[in-house]
Amino acid sequence: MPKIWSQTIEAHRDAVREATIDATAALVAAQGLTGVTMSQIAKDTGIGRATLYKYFPDVESILVAWHDRQITEHLRDLIQVRDRTTGAARRLEAVLAAYAKAISHRRGSHDELGDLLHRGARVSAAHRQLSDLVRELIVDAAAAGAITRDVPANELTLYCLHALGAAPGLRGPAAVGRLVRTTLAGLRADDRG
Amino acid sequence: MPKIWSQTIEAHRDAVREATIDATAALVAAQGLTGVTMSQIAKDTGIGRATLYKYFPDVESILVAWHDRQITEHLRDLIQVRDRTTGAARRLEAVLAAYAKAISHRRGSHDELGDLLHRGARVSAAHRQLSDLVRELIVDAAAAGAITRDVPANELTLYCLHALGAAPGLRGPAAVGRLVRTTLAGLRADDRG
Repeated sequence: MPKIWSQTIEAHRDAVREATIDATAALVAAQGLTGVTMSQIAKDTGIGRATLYKYFPDVESILVAWHDRQITEHLRDLIQVRDRTTGAARRLEAVLAAYAKAISHRRGSHDELGDLLHRGARVSAAHRQLSDLVRELIVDAAAAGAITRDVPANELTLYCLHALGAAPGLRGPAAVGRLVRTTLAGLRADDRG
Repeated sequence: MPKIWSQTIEAHRDAVREATIDATAALVAAQGLTGVTMSQIAKDTGIGRATLYKYFPDVESILVAWHDRQITEHLRDLIQVRDRTTGAARRLEAVLAAYAKAISHRRGSHDELGDLLHRGARVSAAHRQLSDLVRELIVDAAAAGAITRDVPANELTLYCLHALGAAPGLRGPAAVGRLVRTTLAGLRADDRG
């Protein structure tokens, strides 16, 4: 197959994948998670049901792909924030603040879905990358003496990501800022009660 | 209708409701959220499909009832813990520790469901009671000077419940204890720097 033709096919496949994810996102936003079927998704995407099954085996796999896409977008931004900030403590603060801000814009049932998925059996690769990014910053900040060393880094990572998960329920950037500072205060305190 | 007969009917209805919720929980645990249908639930409950629709209009309403039942069980325990503990700070600590311990036993996709539901449009009455309980303890602890007064109580409540939501992902009671202490440290610190 000529290269130009295989590139065209590849681009077409990407477009179908993206359109499928978009259609599924719209369906879940409109009617919630339950009741979303492969037939409906195929219809809304404008492709045949048999074609859809060549891309995704079931609804859940589309939801996982959707969540991966969201997290991947966040990750790109967070890596930029990390790389332009100096100092272990300030890096951690800047990345957590950027993460909280990013997810605070996600509202509605289709976004909580992400939490459902990444906490289930199928932890997405993108979410693992997000956890790794935060954990590395926590390890560095602990080594620099900026946060507690009394709690394992993987536990503090879970704490951070969950605590900041409150952001979509808050009203306005000031409240999100207070959430970030409260979460950081939990990391910092040496007095573990 | 004689009273004894109406009581019998009431007990029967409760039994059908509970059996329906149990069957749905088992189905979601076995095959995940998507693909669970009213027909399958009716079959597994051992009732007719038409009968099922007299109890619940859709799958989501059964999931909401299930989540309500879980939270209601936790609430009963948390109120006991609150009432047998003295001092605003110690009450807050004891209740948060009991909550984290309770949810740390919930694992698997059917439990993350709760998070999906109570953060969606349909916030359950039971979850509102849980939030109210925690918020009152936070207000009291702030008034006693035991935690920060720089952040509104409803924001701190969201922070607590989300941060402690990391508990099911932790291994063992020691890790859950560290999570509770980290979360409390976030509430306490006056340095919001």
